[in-house]
Amino acid sequence: MTGAAEGTTEDDAAARACLTAAADAGDAALGRLLRERPAAEVWAALRDGTLDRMLPASGEDRRRDRTERWRVQAAQVEADRLLDRAAEAGARLVVPGDPEWPGRLDPLGDRRPYALWVRGRKDLRNSCLRSVAVVGSRAATAYGLHVAAELGHSLAVRAWTVVSGGAYGIDSAAHRGALAGAAPTVAVLACGPDRFYPRGNEALFGEIAEHGVLVTENAPGAAPTRYGFLVRNRLIAALTPGTVVVEAGLRSGALNTAHHAQELHRTVMAVPGPVTSALSAGCHRLLRDWHAVCVGGAAEVAEQLGSIGEELAASGGTVMACDGLDEEARSILDAVPEKPGAGPAAIAAEAGTGLDTALRQLGLLAAGGFIERGPSGWRRRPGTAPP
Amino acid sequence: MTGAAEGTTEDDAAARACLTAAADAGDAALGRLLRERPAAEVWAALRDGTLDRMLPASGEDRRRDRTERWRVQAAQVEADRLLDRAAEAGARLVVPGDPEWPGRLDPLGDRRPYALWVRGRKDLRNSCLRSVAVVGSRAATAYGLHVAAELGHSLAVRAWTVVSGGAYGIDSAAHRGALAGAAPTVAVLACGPDRFYPRGNEALFGEIAEHGVLVTENAPGAAPTRYGFLVRNRLIAALTPGTVVVEAGLRSGALNTAHHAQELHRTVMAVPGPVTSALSAGCHRLLRDWHAVCVGGAAEVAEQLGSIGEELAASGGTVMACDGLDEEARSILDAVPEKPGAGPAAIAAEAGTGLDTALRQLGLLAAGGFIERGPSGWRRRPGTAPP
Repeated sequence: MTGAAEGTTEDDAAARACLTAAADAGDAALGRLLRERPAAEVWAALRDGTLDRMLPASGEDRRRDRTERWRVQAAQVEADRLLDRAAEAGARLVVPGDPEWPGRLDPLGDRRPYALWVRGRKDLRNSCLRSVAVVGSRAATAYGLHVAAELGHSLAVRAWTVVSGGAYGIDSAAHRGALAGAAPTVAVLACGPDRFYPRGNEALFGEIAEHGVLVTENAPGAAPTRYGFLVRNRLIAALTPGTVVVEAGLRSGALNTAHHAQELHRTVMAVPGPVTSALSAGCHRLLRDWHAVCVGGAAEVAEQLGSIGEELAASGGTVMACDGLDEEARSILDAVPEKPGAGPAAIAAEAGTGLDTALRQLGLLAAGGFIERGPSGWRRRPGTAPP
Repeated sequence: MTGAAEGTTEDDAAARACLTAAADAGDAALGRLLRERPAAEVWAALRDGTLDRMLPASGEDRRRDRTERWRVQAAQVEADRLLDRAAEAGARLVVPGDPEWPGRLDPLGDRRPYALWVRGRKDLRNSCLRSVAVVGSRAATAYGLHVAAELGHSLAVRAWTVVSGGAYGIDSAAHRGALAGAAPTVAVLACGPDRFYPRGNEALFGEIAEHGVLVTENAPGAAPTRYGFLVRNRLIAALTPGTVVVEAGLRSGALNTAHHAQELHRTVMAVPGPVTSALSAGCHRLLRDWHAVCVGGAAEVAEQLGSIGEELAASGGTVMACDGLDEEARSILDAVPEKPGAGPAAIAAEAGTGLDTALRQLGLLAAGGFIERGPSGWRRRPGTAPP
């Protein structure tokens, strides 16, 4: 640490926003620097062309080319413009230390994102507490699409949040299944938060923003790149305690996500399929050579991630209620009936809070597995009675 | 050991033949006794009603009921009649110590068969040297039947012998695939060697006897029983270095075979299938809970059993040629060309033996992985050139 008092938190957040626009995502040397120095100082050095002096001397030529490229890009970047552009698209900036920052990203170490751009009604951190990554090929078979949608839906019913990319095929099917189960989902994008890629999924992204979260480490305006998809995959793996590969050929990017999950010591699961299908060959390789766990449905996935589920949703959930929920959340949880359920307005009245507060807290409590949406409105999940 | 000189080998073989007719197969107490005393002595005690005195006193009542039942059955049994009946059906008796006895059965310990009844042109022991058990449900799906036949055929082409039961479904498909690959197969039956069960497979059993081996631990005339199928499964597992379950529901007998294979520390493999198919649920349980190896075809099976393959078929095969083949087999192997291949008559002439001898030895050499049948006749397999 240098005399780090210079950068205010606000300066640092703005600097991190700028870094997402100027530098390549997930750069380990830059990430290490950000652990040692205030972000505002690192950003200033990048703009001044003095960043190289802060970095270790190894691999100098390539390093210098890269920081020079970043410096040129940095000249175009202004924090206010970025934040305005994000706000127009309904996106917010989340940086390490913010309440919405998912602590599960921290084990990425030097490759932790500099900052995240988040869009959607739900809280990113809370949505990911009880979550599972569901990934697979774009060019999926009818079998794979069926299993992904079914899995997304059954996970939703069990109050597990689906985390996936935004591609056609398995990703979309998993999101759609979860949304059909009236649950939030998290889509991790490889482009800016104000862009839709692929464009054909625009309506799906809108629905995810409405009921869940879109998240990206790419600044507003950023177009997706091949490299971007690969580094994006580490976020899908890191946001969740486990990754399920539903259907994947031997060269699918889903195997890259599984690889990240394994490196992070998260649970790697694979759905088997016919051995006659090339699109299941990647899953079978995971089972054979990587010791992935063979799963066929949400019950088996939940079993593998059991301790996380217990912590939040089973009788142990009351422990979590005491320890992890703030006063506001507690008062809303107390106001949610066990049955038959109640609407947000009635719950807000019962808790003596505004409707906005009730809506926000209900979303967080649902993401945490404490409550669920039934035919008659919100109700407490079994085993989560407040103490 | 008591003064064991009494029983001649011939007496012991006849006694073991009688035991297969009078006692339940795979009885551990009887098996232990047979390891300690000559079979003729054990058989005499069973007939005389003095067997109980040789057995440990534990669980006395059930034990006594059982030996009494055996004694009653034993009164009907005569070795000569059994052997005659077997001979009529073309079956021979094989007992421990015989050259055709498969040493792989010995780790069954007290549950080793008392004797085997063998029918067919091939030598049981040699056929099983380079073999793999391929098992699964009777009520298989089109997918399972396709995979079983394909696997049987590809194993055959790679000179691996398929060992299975005689049931409809996966068993039959695996045998048929292997036979279509012009390879011997081994069917382990749960009835006497002179019976066909199920009757609809009579033609298949005929073909297996013609090109491979039928084997059973049940005496001529024995009808199949539910218990018999379960103890039969341990033989399928024990005869081979590894078992592949192609398609099996959660209550399939194939899981019982896999369980035996695991107890014997043999390799357990499972072919995955759609998670939407109840008939693959047993395979998926093996993959998830038993750490079975996920395999999709013969190449992956062979890879798992690699060391056995190398021992016999790769360059190490010459070691086997020196150590394990007798003079007659060596002379035939020397007469088999590397390419393009030759017919049995030409090989017999080259080796200076009769055609019968040549035919028998060619079968054994093929079962051992030394030679294979190509479009122009028999040829040596790569890496098995004689020293």
